[in-house]
Amino acid sequence: MTNLFNDPRKFRDEFLSGFLAAYSDRVVGVEGSYGVMRADGPPVGRVAVLIGGGSGHYPTRCGFVGPGLADIAVVGNTFVSPPSQQILRCTRAVNGGHGVIYLYGNYAGDRLNFDMAASEAESEGIAIRQVVGCDDVASAPKGSEADRRGIAGDFFLFKIAGAAAESGRDLEGVAEAAQRANAGSRSFGVAFSGCTLPGAREPLFVVKPGQMEVGLGIHGEPGVDTSQMGAADDVADLLVHKVLDSAPTDSGGRVAVLLNSLGRTNGEELFVLYRKIKELLDGAGLQTHHVIVDCLTSSLDMAGCSLSLLWLDDDLARLYDMPASAPAYVHHLVGGAR
Amino acid sequence: MTNLFNDPRKFRDEFLSGFLAAYSDRVVGVEGSYGVMRADGPPVGRVAVLIGGGSGHYPTRCGFVGPGLADIAVVGNTFVSPPSQQILRCTRAVNGGHGVIYLYGNYAGDRLNFDMAASEAESEGIAIRQVVGCDDVASAPKGSEADRRGIAGDFFLFKIAGAAAESGRDLEGVAEAAQRANAGSRSFGVAFSGCTLPGAREPLFVVKPGQMEVGLGIHGEPGVDTSQMGAADDVADLLVHKVLDSAPTDSGGRVAVLLNSLGRTNGEELFVLYRKIKELLDGAGLQTHHVIVDCLTSSLDMAGCSLSLLWLDDDLARLYDMPASAPAYVHHLVGGAR
Repeated sequence: MTNLFNDPRKFRDEFLSGFLAAYSDRVVGVEGSYGVMRADGPPVGRVAVLIGGGSGHYPTRCGFVGPGLADIAVVGNTFVSPPSQQILRCTRAVNGGHGVIYLYGNYAGDRLNFDMAASEAESEGIAIRQVVGCDDVASAPKGSEADRRGIAGDFFLFKIAGAAAESGRDLEGVAEAAQRANAGSRSFGVAFSGCTLPGAREPLFVVKPGQMEVGLGIHGEPGVDTSQMGAADDVADLLVHKVLDSAPTDSGGRVAVLLNSLGRTNGEELFVLYRKIKELLDGAGLQTHHVIVDCLTSSLDMAGCSLSLLWLDDDLARLYDMPASAPAYVHHLVGGAR
Repeated sequence: MTNLFNDPRKFRDEFLSGFLAAYSDRVVGVEGSYGVMRADGPPVGRVAVLIGGGSGHYPTRCGFVGPGLADIAVVGNTFVSPPSQQILRCTRAVNGGHGVIYLYGNYAGDRLNFDMAASEAESEGIAIRQVVGCDDVASAPKGSEADRRGIAGDFFLFKIAGAAAESGRDLEGVAEAAQRANAGSRSFGVAFSGCTLPGAREPLFVVKPGQMEVGLGIHGEPGVDTSQMGAADDVADLLVHKVLDSAPTDSGGRVAVLLNSLGRTNGEELFVLYRKIKELLDGAGLQTHHVIVDCLTSSLDMAGCSLSLLWLDDDLARLYDMPASAPAYVHHLVGGAR
């Protein structure tokens, strides 16, 4: 259940109001567009990074607005793409004269609306590039990578593009780095329970006790399979093998890891899982360059998790290591999890 | 449900292994004691901060080991105090010759075990002070503040003591600041569902649909009351009034705020709630000095939340503003949420 709401139709508005109130020194709203922008204003002398999509997935995406990550986030209604006019208004607000890169997950509604906004922005003289996250290996087979939907691994695009923009690359350079990150990202997820929209009495789908949905999308899109719920080590084995079976070719042996909770699955469960994942990655000869074990892309109150890997070349590793500081994610300046 | 586990009896061991693997550059385990210590070793030339208690509450406590917060955490089994011998071994490991402060929540088992460890440590010549968190206003009435149990607001003690130790205060000074933080902390919580121990088939308790448990403890201890689940604004109203009704006297009008999820309640729900909480705090003439809206003290997969306030005098505000950086909490160096 989603338990805390007033008028369900105002859920997104009220969540955003609370978010902006909590972090008022760091982010500001963009009038009439459900945009969340850095409080220090649009970037000066560099490319702007705009991320967006439906809500219901906090902390992505508004939680990732800050130095080294996104400059602005456009927040759609729960599980619904933001309309093109709102994306356009946010584009105008964030443009600092060096172009804007759009980063979002590969869903039909988002593609349509971001494409429309891009056309209009370009007709106003704002240069736009788009990189569409497609990391979920469950959603399309090898050879059709561009048809895959975007799930938790889209975070890697934000991190890389944010660092590339911050370090002064031009729009082509930022887009090229983000596209390389996209080509090197792979995710696979499982779910143990459905999620419930604010105000709804029933979950969007039901997972039978003792079972799990394999390869399920973050909005409850059908999974690849339903299987018996196994021990944590079996789930780790499944996640690692599904991701490694779809590994990009010639991409080296160094990865960033994101083990993501879909909401209800707690940190201790994730670490039980990570213990085995690390063993399997080591066994496969992969070097874990950086590790995140957290909830970065939720699906309301869904129980489940996903494993995302980003294969890093030297340039991506340098960008990944750059500091970042947003309300919901801080990339540590010193040390960090290796 | 807790979904991800292998042998339930090894849940804590495996969770800790995974945690240490994920953050191996920043924390190390302490042999035979379920301790998590800063990877750069015991503090040099200053007081050491030791926190501890049962697990099942991640990210507290092991997630808070790092510069500006705790030097070591002793991690008990799920909802069970760590034994005194493990606390003692961690005390020896972290002692840098300037004494050790123990910080933990007010539960009978913890008091017994930490007291025993303190006696033994002192007999070995290690100076110990203890500050026992008792922030939950639901658990004992006004005038019996020292009988209250510790819940999410215990984080404030860790933050203040960590800053006081880092800034070079002696053991008496650190204990005095932590005690002042304890005297200025108030929490109140509600739950919308029970939680399920790893391997159990049934939750520890059940909340009927459409109801909520008011003043429930973080291990499922009985609440003060059961009431109809209201709108988010009604829950905000309840939390704020319960906390303000028990406000410390003569403590000024400046507060740090922690709106904490018990696990399953997601970020967007918390922000819907915070929107109203902020309005009510403003209406009561309180200045919100710093705001955290996150899950800092979970109770496995329980749905629910708590509101904690720390009333800040000038010295506590200075300590609270000092930077901190741990796997699960970063206190921002610049800006921050005000």
